Amino acid sequence: MGRRLSGPIGVYDSGFGGLSVLRELRRTLPTHDFVYLGDSGRAPYGGRDVHTILDMAEQCVERLFHEGCAVVVVACHTVSSVALRHLQRRYGAGERRVLGVTIPAAECAVGVTRGHIGLLGTARTVASGTFATEVHKLSGARVTELAAPLLAPIVEEGWEETEVARAAVRRYVHALGAVDTLVLGCTHYPLLRQAFEGALGPEVTLLDPAPFVARRLADWLERHPGFATPGTGRLRALSTGDPERFAQLGERFLGEPLHEVEYVAEVDGRLVPTTRVVHVGQVVR
Amino acid sequence: MGRRLSGPIGVYDSGFGGLSVLRELRRTLPTHDFVYLGDSGRAPYGGRDVHTILDMAEQCVERLFHEGCAVVVVACHTVSSVALRHLQRRYGAGERRVLGVTIPAAECAVGVTRGHIGLLGTARTVASGTFATEVHKLSGARVTELAAPLLAPIVEEGWEETEVARAAVRRYVHALGAVDTLVLGCTHYPLLRQAFEGALGPEVTLLDPAPFVARRLADWLERHPGFATPGTGRLRALSTGDPERFAQLGERFLGEPLHEVEYVAEVDGRLVPTTRVVHVGQVVR
Repeated sequence: MGRRLSGPIGVYDSGFGGLSVLRELRRTLPTHDFVYLGDSGRAPYGGRDVHTILDMAEQCVERLFHEGCAVVVVACHTVSSVALRHLQRRYGAGERRVLGVTIPAAECAVGVTRGHIGLLGTARTVASGTFATEVHKLSGARVTELAAPLLAPIVEEGWEETEVARAAVRRYVHALGAVDTLVLGCTHYPLLRQAFEGALGPEVTLLDPAPFVARRLADWLERHPGFATPGTGRLRALSTGDPERFAQLGERFLGEPLHEVEYVAEVDGRLVPTTRVVHVGQVVR
Repeated sequence: MGRRLSGPIGVYDSGFGGLSVLRELRRTLPTHDFVYLGDSGRAPYGGRDVHTILDMAEQCVERLFHEGCAVVVVACHTVSSVALRHLQRRYGAGERRVLGVTIPAAECAVGVTRGHIGLLGTARTVASGTFATEVHKLSGARVTELAAPLLAPIVEEGWEETEVARAAVRRYVHALGAVDTLVLGCTHYPLLRQAFEGALGPEVTLLDPAPFVARRLADWLERHPGFATPGTGRLRALSTGDPERFAQLGERFLGEPLHEVEYVAEVDGRLVPTTRVVHVGQVVR
């Protein structure tokens, strides 16, 4: 790994969901190059203990540093909630930075709420209380957080536009109670926007933090110009899981085809590249 | 570990679901003692690679042997499909036996089908093809297997009697097509019996293999009387996850309260007892 700064921007997620954040990052920074690492072979992180999550997050962030990224965005709310402070302490000095999504989500929510913010997320995101902590650094707004463990599986099943999705979203929204702002605290949920709009009254603001995360990253890069420089808008995708499944599922989150997915595997506690690259359309089994 | 045979019957599952099998085992063998080990701290197994599943299954089965069980029933369809042959080769000689649920499920289905058997299960159970292989050893019946990844999370959420459950079951049943026999190939699904009965036409036989697994175990014990002897109907429950959550969720699967759950933890690649025992009603946090 060289000493040079700048290069592509790293985006790390436990699986596919972060591609919905990457979509906004690329929209806002269209000439920057990105390397996305989805730890889909070890997802979901939800049932793992915190030490395992920290360990897996370190491996992923280090892989992205090795790929030449000086700044890594942790796109996953679960990892941001549980591991961001640890990652920043470990790597966030000198030539490298790790940024997350929880603080931008809190800032964004505080900016629009009339006093009661709701957040839906994974059980682990909710249990961490990190989002509420960040909101309360900025405002006295009330925060109600609720775990919505069925929503990510519904999206991964491709059932966003079914009665299953609508009924599940209605139940979670009802259980959340009378919030005025609803934060989609998991990168899978923006794909359920239609179901949420159908379930929410007109008085509730639905908030996907991703566009705000993108604007915050663009501002940050203006203040820290050495960490990433515009390139040709190239995107590389790395996955610890089946690359073909990654390409297929990922396209729905990214909103455009993933032409190539590189497979990375854990060897002796590190994620290393393999020769297995899937060009979409190629038969691998 | 002594040389003595007989003692309690071990029941191993990746989490809570196997308690729905244990319920039938205890109904059929009410005076036998049971030790149930739920690997809920490391569940779901679905996203794990096969080597990891084999390793975790070995740890769990060995723990049950150490607890004095000479026979262990693998109640989980995913583990039975993926790891049973491995476990039987490794342990299934001499003084110990490991039994599974896939062969009883296949025998039961072959006994009632008029020619087309459907199975719903986890993605890994379906990908293994083990159920179809076992059916085809016994019969020329057609087998259609379909992964139903939303159903176990719906049950764990406690939403069995909601429109979410009914709509999801309808979609999976519809996708399965015109089967005459539907096997519930995951230990969570019997809790969705009402939703299934509402979705299936009267010409389809709904089959929970658990009662048949219990009868097969009783028959087997008659032929192998040394492996477990009647006791006082005592039940011990061990869990690798939060014992309190295990007791709460487990009660719905077992159909009766779990008065005590013992916590076992992985240390140096083995599951070992800890001093943490939760008596229900006791506050642990």
